[in-house]
Amino acid sequence: MKISIIGSGNVATHLAIAFFRAGHDIVDVCSPSPGHAQALASEVRARAVTQPSQLDPAVDLCLIAVRDDVIADVAAAVTLQRAILVHTAGSVSLEVLSSHRRIGVFYPFQTFSKGRQLDVAQIPFCLEAGDPETLDQLKMLVESLDATHHELNSAERKALHVAAVFACNFTNHLYALASELLREKGMPFDLLKPLIEETAGKIKERDPLEAQTGPAVRNDLKVINEHLKLLQDKPEFREVYRLLSASISKMHQG
Amino acid sequence: MKISIIGSGNVATHLAIAFFRAGHDIVDVCSPSPGHAQALASEVRARAVTQPSQLDPAVDLCLIAVRDDVIADVAAAVTLQRAILVHTAGSVSLEVLSSHRRIGVFYPFQTFSKGRQLDVAQIPFCLEAGDPETLDQLKMLVESLDATHHELNSAERKALHVAAVFACNFTNHLYALASELLREKGMPFDLLKPLIEETAGKIKERDPLEAQTGPAVRNDLKVINEHLKLLQDKPEFREVYRLLSASISKMHQG
Repeated sequence: MKISIIGSGNVATHLAIAFFRAGHDIVDVCSPSPGHAQALASEVRARAVTQPSQLDPAVDLCLIAVRDDVIADVAAAVTLQRAILVHTAGSVSLEVLSSHRRIGVFYPFQTFSKGRQLDVAQIPFCLEAGDPETLDQLKMLVESLDATHHELNSAERKALHVAAVFACNFTNHLYALASELLREKGMPFDLLKPLIEETAGKIKERDPLEAQTGPAVRNDLKVINEHLKLLQDKPEFREVYRLLSASISKMHQG
Repeated sequence: MKISIIGSGNVATHLAIAFFRAGHDIVDVCSPSPGHAQALASEVRARAVTQPSQLDPAVDLCLIAVRDDVIADVAAAVTLQRAILVHTAGSVSLEVLSSHRRIGVFYPFQTFSKGRQLDVAQIPFCLEAGDPETLDQLKMLVESLDATHHELNSAERKALHVAAVFACNFTNHLYALASELLREKGMPFDLLKPLIEETAGKIKERDPLEAQTGPAVRNDLKVINEHLKLLQDKPEFREVYRLLSASISKMHQG
């Protein structure tokens, strides 16, 4: 496929490189910052442009991978007639693209970080499209990456995105809170790494409800109260501890 | 070493088997339930007993791996004179064993689940002892398992245990909440597995503070408010969402 990319952030970069490696022809990379556009464009042998109006019209697909709140504006500035126009956002409806003829959502359900390699074949792509032919083309694009796809409508995708905030963003924040507790006592974060790995590894083979361990699921009030006492000078940590313990109790005893 | 084990739960089972495989001689397995004692004893070619008073006195080490709140009572019932007596609990002081002469803590910093294999060499063991010779013997025991050890006093160990509740128990609960959100919409939990794996994998190479992604760290109030609206019929999920988002904002924006 002939593909153009709007955006130069983590998602744009990972996808552009994945498409390029899968043999697709990346035509343009568009970013308002000429330096960012050029940096990514040179990695995928594309042309760098700074305005959507400058995009070469002779492409099959134009992928918008920009911040959620500017997708609508960017889409409005795209003048391509023939190309499928897709965005990559979990929380944004297909509708924001509806002034275009052939539209879709190409949501890679994964967390992307600068400088971290990802195996694109391990990413579940969540697809939605305005018409069946467009959907078929998006499926073929996923297949060209050796990845899997799920068809989700906008409401399902939004629910999935909320779930991802819990399972990924909030989880990472708990790692950060744990790290801070260790740092204060002069203990290395490395101590926690095997535990974090095992906690995540466990849910590959069992439901997280069954995998739950710790004082809250045992309703071990003695330990819980000792922990709250240890956190007495850290009201923020205490509040998180209290709320999540109560939530565990409710889910398991409630 | 000649070792006896008091307890027959997850920690007792994993450690007894690890000691046995490393070539140690497991003498007795003690559990108030004869069936549980016998089940574990037969796995490690030991004798099953139901009372601490029945333990063979000719052992080098007696390991108490029972619920935190019964460790003191169990220790009081142990009449061994010569053996090192250790417990395995993160939140319990060394002092609860102080009526004995040679005491220690042998805390395997990992989450144990029935029926799930663990590589014991990947477990950081947190050690504390009443005297230097005992500490040396505990270090040698860890080395015999090819594992690593850290010397932590009781205060440090308790702080580490609190950190583990955040990084493991609460994290797993977030997986359970995410799973519940998907189940309600008929989406499979499998969708989340690559994301969970990547989120945990990322912190092997970068600090969780740097690895943070999502609407809260971007201060993307539009997405946050949409998510809270989607959770409006689930006050518990909402409260967790709100508190953790605020905690992320505070940690990152100050």
